[in-house]
Amino acid sequence: MPKTLLFRSEDLRSFIQRFFTRLNVPPDHAAIAADILLAADLRGVDSHGIIRLNTYYGVRLRKGLINPLSPTKTIHETTTTLAMDGGNGLGMVVGYQAMHHCIERARQSGVSMVTVRNSNHYGIAGYYAMMALPEEMIGISYTNSQPLVAPTYGRSAIIGTNPIAVAVPTNHERPFVLDMATSIVPIGRITVYDKAGKPIPEGWGIDITGQVTTDPKAVLNGGALLPLGGIDLMRGYKGYGLGLMVDIFSGVLSGASFLSHVGRPEKADHGANVGHFFAAIRIDAFRPVEEFKANMDQVIQELKESPKAINQERIYIPGEKEYERTERYLQDGVPLLENVAESLQKAGEEIGVPFVNPIGSTEGEEES
Amino acid sequence: MPKTLLFRSEDLRSFIQRFFTRLNVPPDHAAIAADILLAADLRGVDSHGIIRLNTYYGVRLRKGLINPLSPTKTIHETTTTLAMDGGNGLGMVVGYQAMHHCIERARQSGVSMVTVRNSNHYGIAGYYAMMALPEEMIGISYTNSQPLVAPTYGRSAIIGTNPIAVAVPTNHERPFVLDMATSIVPIGRITVYDKAGKPIPEGWGIDITGQVTTDPKAVLNGGALLPLGGIDLMRGYKGYGLGLMVDIFSGVLSGASFLSHVGRPEKADHGANVGHFFAAIRIDAFRPVEEFKANMDQVIQELKESPKAINQERIYIPGEKEYERTERYLQDGVPLLENVAESLQKAGEEIGVPFVNPIGSTEGEEES
Repeated sequence: MPKTLLFRSEDLRSFIQRFFTRLNVPPDHAAIAADILLAADLRGVDSHGIIRLNTYYGVRLRKGLINPLSPTKTIHETTTTLAMDGGNGLGMVVGYQAMHHCIERARQSGVSMVTVRNSNHYGIAGYYAMMALPEEMIGISYTNSQPLVAPTYGRSAIIGTNPIAVAVPTNHERPFVLDMATSIVPIGRITVYDKAGKPIPEGWGIDITGQVTTDPKAVLNGGALLPLGGIDLMRGYKGYGLGLMVDIFSGVLSGASFLSHVGRPEKADHGANVGHFFAAIRIDAFRPVEEFKANMDQVIQELKESPKAINQERIYIPGEKEYERTERYLQDGVPLLENVAESLQKAGEEIGVPFVNPIGSTEGEEES
Repeated sequence: MPKTLLFRSEDLRSFIQRFFTRLNVPPDHAAIAADILLAADLRGVDSHGIIRLNTYYGVRLRKGLINPLSPTKTIHETTTTLAMDGGNGLGMVVGYQAMHHCIERARQSGVSMVTVRNSNHYGIAGYYAMMALPEEMIGISYTNSQPLVAPTYGRSAIIGTNPIAVAVPTNHERPFVLDMATSIVPIGRITVYDKAGKPIPEGWGIDITGQVTTDPKAVLNGGALLPLGGIDLMRGYKGYGLGLMVDIFSGVLSGASFLSHVGRPEKADHGANVGHFFAAIRIDAFRPVEEFKANMDQVIQELKESPKAINQERIYIPGEKEYERTERYLQDGVPLLENVAESLQKAGEEIGVPFVNPIGSTEGEEES
């Protein structure tokens, strides 16, 4: 059973900020990037959190493959739209700035959309969508990503797991926050099964010939993930269509890379040219905010109070589990696997940034 | 083997127009509604086409449950947005007007969004998204619909099959047209299996206790459809989240009905209060149209040329099968099952509108 260490979230935030600052990221940018990476861990999306601090961002910053100054620039703008160049900067910083501009424009114009080219992995898509919530707006964010998913009837991983995130404000209930990859599972889930020596559920992935396999190694070695829905019979072509739609908005509309041209972090010796898409929608451009939010509460309550399937006790709203996890982690500490903590400590030592001490530990790994 | 009759598409169009006009729909509205219903049949989505002419629209028009004049009005507007009341009119007429306004506003402002409340079933979502294509815009349309889908861990059908449609212009290739229900299959697919006395594939639907069943009758009698993805293990909660997102945009943002409050056509003795959502995005608000369209062609070519799974010969782009079917039906005739044609003939005779003659027939029903 792997050991899990618990850390104060503010300690991890401080470490991430010092780490980025040491690698020549400006302090205000480091604070933004830390908030977004930490948000992933707090929401339980640990694959997109601090675990990437060195393995993705640190490595690529030191190799000069990410520009630490994130020198974004405007390619084209209108009152409602903005096409940005991310300057091959930190995806989190670029994404934050882009969504900030998007919200500002929506405040003036009711709705706004922003595209970004020449960026890098930006962490969790949900963060940017959620930036709209305090503004009484609906927030949307898409990004493309390294190719891991096969199109229906194909066998090559040529589409990213391209997430869709949509955040919607509520009144008393917690906000609706959909933040989903358009594949069934992320590649990290396959790796977990592989390390545990367990077969994967039938339908999650295909082997190098394009046939469904339960062998995680066959997916990892030349195979591919399947899009949401899975095989044709279960309408996996809809998940394929959604993943492609995200690539069109993030990659094609922005002028970034798309499909298999999006940089694979372990291979690319040049900028990844990831593309993002953001939208913000003022609720009161359509109806009074209070009416809208009261209806959102009603939607949530009616769903939660509706009859449960046999052996089930609870119906969840998208984002609800993540909000509960955040509350727990802020109180009890953020869990990191011991080997992850050790590798962060080692990475910090190498650049003279001391890691932080755990406040406790538990046995076992939480399923996320 | 059921017999299928073939009809000239212009004959069917004429019949639909005469039928609607006879029921006091203004001629220009009847022409719009005919074009949209016919588009469904031409694209192979026959469940949303002429088959509903009498069973849904005709019946409800005669009962006074749909206003034949579709007296839409503006609830609120800005330069980029419009909130409309559909006047309990014909969904196709209301939807067409709404998307028309959306495109007009996007032409001025770069992007635009329009919501509609107090409408009725509007046919295929894809039609409205596709209206943006000749304008060099991306078109989006969502609608909510009668409750048929259970939320993850639930057992009651309280969410519609709420479709997502996105249309994107291309250069030489056919446009990308995603038009998908957020359930795995529509309820009509379950009915087809039931009539054939065949079990449904495991995962499409649940019985009254919330357990997955292969018995179509168990889905139809108190059960529910499952959202795209299916059960929890296959991440059906993502499909549930997408269906809910569509309801938020179509039902809540518009101020229409939502969840189980959306009218069931066979029951409701009042307006259905269906809600729609439309968006239009000018490509050139982000980058030059020719660059964008060249990249779209490249996306499509790369997908189609990518390696096929074993025993597969072709990778499809969303919308491609529908474009091919339309071309074939325009040339060879639009197929209608003999019993559908008979019921249309009968419905026409009842109101003094003669049906049209087939130009041929085939044996068997095409899988769609």
